[in-house]
Amino acid sequence: MTDIKYCIPIIGLIRLLFAFYKSYWIGKQEKGSEKMQKIGVAISDGAMAFLKAEYSVLVYFVIVVAALLAWMNAGKDDSSALISVSFILGAVSSALAGYIGMKVATKANYRTTHAAKTGLEKALAIAFTGGSVMGLAVVGLGVFGLGALYIVYENLWGWETIQSASKIINVITGFSLGASSIALFARVGGGIYTKAADVGADLVGKVEAGIPEDHPLNPATIADNVGDNVGDVAGMGADLFESYIGSIIGSMVLGGAFIPVFRSMGYNATGAVILPLILAAVGIIISIIGTFMVRVKEGGNPQTALNIGEFGSSAIMIVAFYFIINKFLPESWSFGGIDYTAMGVFYATIIGLVAGLLVGLVTEHYTKLGGKPVLSIVRQSKTGAATNIIAGIGVGFESTAMPVMLIAAGIMGAYYFAGLYGIALAALGMLANTGIQLAVDAYGPISDNAGGIAQMSQQPEVVRQRTDKLDAVGNTTAAIGKGFAIASAALTALALFAAFMQQANIKSINIADPKVMAGLFVGAMLPFLFSSFAMKAVGAAAMSMVEEVRRQFKEIPELKAALSIMKKYDGDESKIKDEELKVFEKAEGKPDYKTCIKISTNAAMKGMILPGVLAIGSVVFVGFVFGATMLGGLLAGITTSGVLLAIFQSNTGGAWDNAKKQIEEGVEIDGYKYEKGGEAHKASVVGDTVGDPFKDTSGPSLNILLKLTSVVALVIAPLIAVKDAIS
Amino acid sequence: MTDIKYCIPIIGLIRLLFAFYKSYWIGKQEKGSEKMQKIGVAISDGAMAFLKAEYSVLVYFVIVVAALLAWMNAGKDDSSALISVSFILGAVSSALAGYIGMKVATKANYRTTHAAKTGLEKALAIAFTGGSVMGLAVVGLGVFGLGALYIVYENLWGWETIQSASKIINVITGFSLGASSIALFARVGGGIYTKAADVGADLVGKVEAGIPEDHPLNPATIADNVGDNVGDVAGMGADLFESYIGSIIGSMVLGGAFIPVFRSMGYNATGAVILPLILAAVGIIISIIGTFMVRVKEGGNPQTALNIGEFGSSAIMIVAFYFIINKFLPESWSFGGIDYTAMGVFYATIIGLVAGLLVGLVTEHYTKLGGKPVLSIVRQSKTGAATNIIAGIGVGFESTAMPVMLIAAGIMGAYYFAGLYGIALAALGMLANTGIQLAVDAYGPISDNAGGIAQMSQQPEVVRQRTDKLDAVGNTTAAIGKGFAIASAALTALALFAAFMQQANIKSINIADPKVMAGLFVGAMLPFLFSSFAMKAVGAAAMSMVEEVRRQFKEIPELKAALSIMKKYDGDESKIKDEELKVFEKAEGKPDYKTCIKISTNAAMKGMILPGVLAIGSVVFVGFVFGATMLGGLLAGITTSGVLLAIFQSNTGGAWDNAKKQIEEGVEIDGYKYEKGGEAHKASVVGDTVGDPFKDTSGPSLNILLKLTSVVALVIAPLIAVKDAIS
Repeated sequence: MTDIKYCIPIIGLIRLLFAFYKSYWIGKQEKGSEKMQKIGVAISDGAMAFLKAEYSVLVYFVIVVAALLAWMNAGKDDSSALISVSFILGAVSSALAGYIGMKVATKANYRTTHAAKTGLEKALAIAFTGGSVMGLAVVGLGVFGLGALYIVYENLWGWETIQSASKIINVITGFSLGASSIALFARVGGGIYTKAADVGADLVGKVEAGIPEDHPLNPATIADNVGDNVGDVAGMGADLFESYIGSIIGSMVLGGAFIPVFRSMGYNATGAVILPLILAAVGIIISIIGTFMVRVKEGGNPQTALNIGEFGSSAIMIVAFYFIINKFLPESWSFGGIDYTAMGVFYATIIGLVAGLLVGLVTEHYTKLGGKPVLSIVRQSKTGAATNIIAGIGVGFESTAMPVMLIAAGIMGAYYFAGLYGIALAALGMLANTGIQLAVDAYGPISDNAGGIAQMSQQPEVVRQRTDKLDAVGNTTAAIGKGFAIASAALTALALFAAFMQQANIKSINIADPKVMAGLFVGAMLPFLFSSFAMKAVGAAAMSMVEEVRRQFKEIPELKAALSIMKKYDGDESKIKDEELKVFEKAEGKPDYKTCIKISTNAAMKGMILPGVLAIGSVVFVGFVFGATMLGGLLAGITTSGVLLAIFQSNTGGAWDNAKKQIEEGVEIDGYKYEKGGEAHKASVVGDTVGDPFKDTSGPSLNILLKLTSVVALVIAPLIAVKDAIS
Repeated sequence: MTDIKYCIPIIGLIRLLFAFYKSYWIGKQEKGSEKMQKIGVAISDGAMAFLKAEYSVLVYFVIVVAALLAWMNAGKDDSSALISVSFILGAVSSALAGYIGMKVATKANYRTTHAAKTGLEKALAIAFTGGSVMGLAVVGLGVFGLGALYIVYENLWGWETIQSASKIINVITGFSLGASSIALFARVGGGIYTKAADVGADLVGKVEAGIPEDHPLNPATIADNVGDNVGDVAGMGADLFESYIGSIIGSMVLGGAFIPVFRSMGYNATGAVILPLILAAVGIIISIIGTFMVRVKEGGNPQTALNIGEFGSSAIMIVAFYFIINKFLPESWSFGGIDYTAMGVFYATIIGLVAGLLVGLVTEHYTKLGGKPVLSIVRQSKTGAATNIIAGIGVGFESTAMPVMLIAAGIMGAYYFAGLYGIALAALGMLANTGIQLAVDAYGPISDNAGGIAQMSQQPEVVRQRTDKLDAVGNTTAAIGKGFAIASAALTALALFAAFMQQANIKSINIADPKVMAGLFVGAMLPFLFSSFAMKAVGAAAMSMVEEVRRQFKEIPELKAALSIMKKYDGDESKIKDEELKVFEKAEGKPDYKTCIKISTNAAMKGMILPGVLAIGSVVFVGFVFGATMLGGLLAGITTSGVLLAIFQSNTGGAWDNAKKQIEEGVEIDGYKYEKGGEAHKASVVGDTVGDPFKDTSGPSLNILLKLTSVVALVIAPLIAVKDAIS
């Protein structure tokens, strides 16, 4: 049974091969017209340009942090410095997963457009497969990297002494820090990128120049489409990769405490350490099975199919987890005055899994089309933008209640059954679905892009209609995915928090201690400050985008001529006369897309620095200056307030988005007809624009803040413990 | 020296007499034209109608809670049931302070309008004197009631045994609960009232019918003006009364722990218990001196005068506190392993006082006209309402950082010098300025009303200009006052929290305990839910107001006729022809103001129930079902997240308000001129409207949530302690 560990990286590798096969399948699909390909390649190039810029900054960051880690840990013994190897490997795995996901997504988008010319089914297959590569890559690389590290370190040092065991556990935490670093760049940077482009393009294109969204005359269009990939594919992927790894590492660290007990019982000593890895690996296989359950025929409801996939695979997981947990853990044991049972650990895992599904359902309730909350926003749009905003914020505030109660109940339940180890395994249980969840998440931006490409390459109306249908499904799933990402970030942060306490050797963090209370206050404030940094970065970047587009509109004569015709017909292209079409032909290819891409990229790189420094700096500063207990208060403050602010921003944004969509679809409430072009619609556009940075930049960034701060605390915990013990 | 206690209620009484004298002085001022008086009386009647409705609900609430308190506490011994007497007295004192304040404020407003006909100086004097009555009444009644209770209970039971001492302390906490109950009704109910009327009047008047603000044709106008008094006079008064009492009671409870130590040292045993009362009483006298420092001549800057008053009285207080603290406390003593000194207590008090002033300055920075934050919102209004909203939220998020750091530093500093007792005295030190602070706060709505009356009674332009000038000064001070109210609520909640821990007999609230962590999560969520309830209540009430006004516009023929003329001239009354004036004369007095007042009143009463039940119910439920430590986590969560959300909402609202004002005043940034009527102005109106419920309803309501939950916890603490000990 001890050799089962070798299976872990192998399962990861198999999954990766599967990802490459699917990627190959997509490459084989027809590319469509030359125009489509040209746009598709422009988007792909833009995405790669962003990744190149990101990674070229990252390289230095990774080297510096790795060196720092090695230097700080070298004091203990030389081999502890290997933590920096774990760190580098974690960073590289996450970066690679992002690269693969983006590459395939930007391959799939224009192929989806082309497929939409013949029918919905094929288009959906391409888009979904494209998305699933991201999911496969993330979990595959995660399990492969972590599993391989585990084997290497075990062979190097072994689990025999307490020193060697704690060294393995300490050194392996670096992997999680690596994953978090990339997540910071990809999620925060990506979030700034995508909204800078989106808001910039909208403000100057739709509002000022009066041209439709995704119009090729708008120089910011390509950047906007690149942004969808950068934010929702690479960003979301890195976010969930971080959660996935964090929950595994947190569980491993806490499981490490049981080693002496298990050994004294004559049981497999590392059962509780390797269990999280095994569960994650098995989760992968079941996720693949789940993917096969997602089958939609023309006319069928993709949402139902998706639910079958997710709930079906969850059911299989519950059965599998039951046998695995009972195999790897003794029936019962005692540690630190608490009695544990294998069944208790099983229940804790299930609690996490179920809580994740329920949070998703609550999120759906608050953001779905036709739901009461969204309709209440629609109704209040009648009296203008102000009441639309007030209603949306009210809905967002309210929507925090149920998820937080579920998380709180989950914490108490998981602890009741299996102590802090139980909380960590609840996180893992929730994240068992990561593979399929990510597949669905990444499917969204691919469909969105496909629609954009259809528009830009002037496809017939029916193609755009089909891609819009794909996109609509993606919107609900995107909101659910965001809820899932937040809940999993919360549980992961708590798992890492518990692991931090163990590593820092503190038993109690007393709120009545004013240092802890002060930490709690400052911690609760950080998500607010973090959000403001993110929003400011978006604002500034959007402004420079607006200026650049205005400059091009003014200085490029061909563009100027085409725009004046557009203006004449108020953006209605059907009215353009045949003799005027020549002007448009001349304008083709004239907008300088690349400069716009560069503006977004630079803004993302620059805007990320302050939040990153804030997150890492505050933890290191409080930890080393004020000690481990105040740091504990800080982390608790960040986690609680961060989760709330993230749910609030994400759900508010989602609800505003769908309130607008609802009005655009047309709906009658209390005898009043809400429809496109009316006053209510204009109001709802304001809400949607405000919601954009909420749900795509500052909200999701908070997931990173939660996990990054707790993983930094975990990594520096042994050092703080030494310092606290001396002073 | 023991008889010094008799001075406390006497000082309170003197202050009350002073309030009556000032009130008499205002009554003597000229009342102005018949039209002014008519409007003034309508406002006054409306305000009294609200108070009557509020108090007639309150009476039952107070009786029920008093009975419950008596019943729950009667188990210990019969006299413990006297806690309900303290409770009733606390409620009555607060209600009385509100009544006096409102009565005088609604007397002062039209007299201010009349005085503005002759000059600025006299108008300012009346408005400021009117406001100061509120301040005088609040602190006077607080010190009088609490001082009298103290004497009665001391004479009844004495401090000799531990039992009798803890009984006095326990029974006196009821006063604080009484104050909090009224605050809930006045602040939450008042907040809903004022914004329902304001938003309703604006939406249907300015937006739909195109008539200017405060126009007599609008049936919701009087309700709007009543709302200013209900929200900003009575609401703010009850809020600060609650803080004032809460900080005194919290300090007294914590000081009670020192009784045996002081006695064994042969020192005045109750020195630390009576000290807070003495400091509060002395603070009153110094506040009066401060009021005399606020003198403004025509052309002078009222803001400077105000600062001299506040900083001057603060300086005197520091000197006085030094002598008092050293007189009432021994030079040094030890308790519970901590060494205390009188000087340490003095430093802690000063820390609170200084922190309060600094939080005020930070608030001013983020909300003042011409400041960088407000200008950044102005700049982003150019591109529409969406960017205006995003910018405002960004500013609001950022503005939480400094106040929270100040509070955190204050907590740590005060504890460093004098333990938990120090934190409570820091709260008291901050609130020493309550008298003068409230005078300034209540001055705002009086000036605002004066302007409204000038408009409604069709005074010449110069009168409105003078009242606008008064109002402008009030805006900055209002924002500062709100910052002060939040900071003091935070420290008061912490003082009560510390007192709760002592009374519940718990030494540690460990975050690593999952119950505490769950409590923290749920607690942090409650302010969000509370805010959503408040906002929803405003939304619903505003809608019914809109419908009522629409009904009147449609069904009252005289109104209809006048409105159609207004519409013809696009709301520009100067264009109205002489022969059309008759139509307006006929319309006079036709709008049914009273129904609008009733709608706001009912909405306020109804909208308050759910938040109140949520606040009290969650504390009682968690306390009795899950025990004292989880309740501790809940309170910590409410306090941290509540403070943040309150600062965020209050500052965002203030900044949006002044961004609009800045544009209306006209300003040029980067070569672009922002002025009234432009696109940027329209965008800024949206922001201002969104900010209204933020800064006047949901934001300030959170102050109440913080304090109410902690005072409920404090009152039920001894009962929970008994239950926890048994189970």
